[in-house]
Amino acid sequence: MKRVSFFVALLVSFVTAVCAQQNIGGVDVATISPHVVDNDVEFLLDAPHAESVLLRADWMPAPVPMSRRQSDNKWYYKCEDMHPGLYTYTYNVDGTTIIDPSSIYSMRDVGQLFTYFIVAGDYADNYMIQDVPHGTVSTQWYDSSAMGYARRFTIYTPAGYEAGNRSYPVLYLLHGMGGDETAWNELGRASVILDNLIAAGKVEPMIVVMPNGNVAQKAAPGASSRGLVAVNFNEPRTCNGEYESAFGEIVDFVDTHYRTYRDASHRAIAGLSMGGYHSYYISANMPSMFGYVGLFSPAINARGNHSFYNDMDSKLLALSESGLSLYWIAIGRDDFLYNEVKELRNRLDKSGFPYVYRESTLGHQWCNWRLYLTEFLPLLFK
Amino acid sequence: MKRVSFFVALLVSFVTAVCAQQNIGGVDVATISPHVVDNDVEFLLDAPHAESVLLRADWMPAPVPMSRRQSDNKWYYKCEDMHPGLYTYTYNVDGTTIIDPSSIYSMRDVGQLFTYFIVAGDYADNYMIQDVPHGTVSTQWYDSSAMGYARRFTIYTPAGYEAGNRSYPVLYLLHGMGGDETAWNELGRASVILDNLIAAGKVEPMIVVMPNGNVAQKAAPGASSRGLVAVNFNEPRTCNGEYESAFGEIVDFVDTHYRTYRDASHRAIAGLSMGGYHSYYISANMPSMFGYVGLFSPAINARGNHSFYNDMDSKLLALSESGLSLYWIAIGRDDFLYNEVKELRNRLDKSGFPYVYRESTLGHQWCNWRLYLTEFLPLLFK
Repeated sequence: MKRVSFFVALLVSFVTAVCAQQNIGGVDVATISPHVVDNDVEFLLDAPHAESVLLRADWMPAPVPMSRRQSDNKWYYKCEDMHPGLYTYTYNVDGTTIIDPSSIYSMRDVGQLFTYFIVAGDYADNYMIQDVPHGTVSTQWYDSSAMGYARRFTIYTPAGYEAGNRSYPVLYLLHGMGGDETAWNELGRASVILDNLIAAGKVEPMIVVMPNGNVAQKAAPGASSRGLVAVNFNEPRTCNGEYESAFGEIVDFVDTHYRTYRDASHRAIAGLSMGGYHSYYISANMPSMFGYVGLFSPAINARGNHSFYNDMDSKLLALSESGLSLYWIAIGRDDFLYNEVKELRNRLDKSGFPYVYRESTLGHQWCNWRLYLTEFLPLLFK
Repeated sequence: MKRVSFFVALLVSFVTAVCAQQNIGGVDVATISPHVVDNDVEFLLDAPHAESVLLRADWMPAPVPMSRRQSDNKWYYKCEDMHPGLYTYTYNVDGTTIIDPSSIYSMRDVGQLFTYFIVAGDYADNYMIQDVPHGTVSTQWYDSSAMGYARRFTIYTPAGYEAGNRSYPVLYLLHGMGGDETAWNELGRASVILDNLIAAGKVEPMIVVMPNGNVAQKAAPGASSRGLVAVNFNEPRTCNGEYESAFGEIVDFVDTHYRTYRDASHRAIAGLSMGGYHSYYISANMPSMFGYVGLFSPAINARGNHSFYNDMDSKLLALSESGLSLYWIAIGRDDFLYNEVKELRNRLDKSGFPYVYRESTLGHQWCNWRLYLTEFLPLLFK
């Protein structure tokens, strides 16, 4: 009884005393939007004075107008029979873009926040946190002697890493333009996918390193001494060879500070878009470093002026003769980089370079990159 | 030239092809609001059709109306001569509460998101990421035999931990009601404060463990198999002795998996509000475990029905005779728990229990808890 009355007093105090001076969410149990029931998803927005509301979503080609629901005057939209997947959206309320005020689940993609939700089923179950052993996700700083300052990467160590003393293979997983060391784990759900696939016995337990490919950044926006800056989609020095040619120092740091196997048969590198470009040149220039290479929607032609980008025919030949186990290329049919990748395949075909090609639906977007990761991981270190 | 034209093509492609099917922020460099210039802060919201906009902020007692600026028709408010600090706010646009659409920097407090910014200077410089060596922040799961499932904590290891082989003292830092294992590092800026104070030589390098005090949760909302649920401010089983009496298994896990000193002179426990309550009872029931105790705005009277909460006079006596180095109590003058803490001090005074008391301005809010942490850390392990 005493405990109950204390809590009542505490709650009342929060309403009357705390909320009067502090903006915490307090007593309110946040309602959650959207409502996901099986494959039907309802969006509800309480904006009584708005004149028009649009739903802008990554599964629809264009924003759709929401309508007022008579029963409660809320803005309403329903999507039926959605495919399984992780989806993101925003609202546009009379011209102002906002995330859903009824959800706390947002992700940043480049310079904008989005609300996200998951429709369960099929491969999307890999994106949901299941009751399986969970690995550890850490933000790790290393001193970059090439850049002259400390930089940050994200690192996943599989469940059991801390308790044991065995060594692990390592995947280096690279983000795209406008991304950073947070992208693969947040937007890409990398640690969730790894936990689930490792627990299912489909993927070898491995360490996954997610570096920051913008050498002008020490870390993601808000995570370095730059402060709370605006996001620059096109950071300088991302495709000029600086990052790629200094990549060995990241591998050295990981090999020195984590329990890794230190040969090509236990190292993979993969990346999306600009990260595919980075993976393409890094793997070709370090033929004995990586036995597994993944190019996800790679922006192959973004080449700058650096020796790292020259003599690719002979470098790829050396790579193919170095004991390469897997060269995996994936792209969506609607991707604006489709023809670039087609040219790359033609070049590889001409020289007899061995690779696996995966063509998916849709385009240059995270739903494909999560899917590619899910398909690529089981092929590694086998 | 080739590179420039590629980027132009890439950017144009994003606008025309990608953004047509995908909702990424893309080319736009997000403008940042608010504009912080020294101690003056300008808030700007582009909501051309709104009829009224309020700014609700944690440094003002009540929401204030914003006004339309003639030059660009944006909603505008200016705060001048703000004290240094980290601040949070939301807008209310015609009745709908939103975070600032012109900032990507948000924090979740219980069940709501807030935009945050920092006014530099004085102690607030400790909340800003400086060019100092950075520790590692990890999400670590452990098997709770008491609860029968794996649970998550956040752990900070100081810069140099991975490279060396020395042992470190450990601070256990506990959140309040409605919080979880993410609260101290996100809202509390714990790792930033630690990095800065350790680099300045004011604080001993230490490990900081931030557990989840809601035993009904495996991890924070969105980080467990519960899925993307609404936040429950008053989680069950938070003050019934289950968490407190099983706290030793967290200490055991940390001592087994991290390089720690394993005696009371190298262990501290501190918490805010409900976490102060937890720290009060845990330290008293384990008198040889923690040599340093911090109660920040503690909710001492939230006691449930468990033997852990009984015989506190004799337990506190045992604690004071166990070689306790510091017992630190802090509260703000406007805190609704002020009188509870006054009662506690009276009880401690009567029995001659040694403690240090810190009374601050303001109330039950994060600006005080960040400040208390900043003041408490330098007193530890000396």
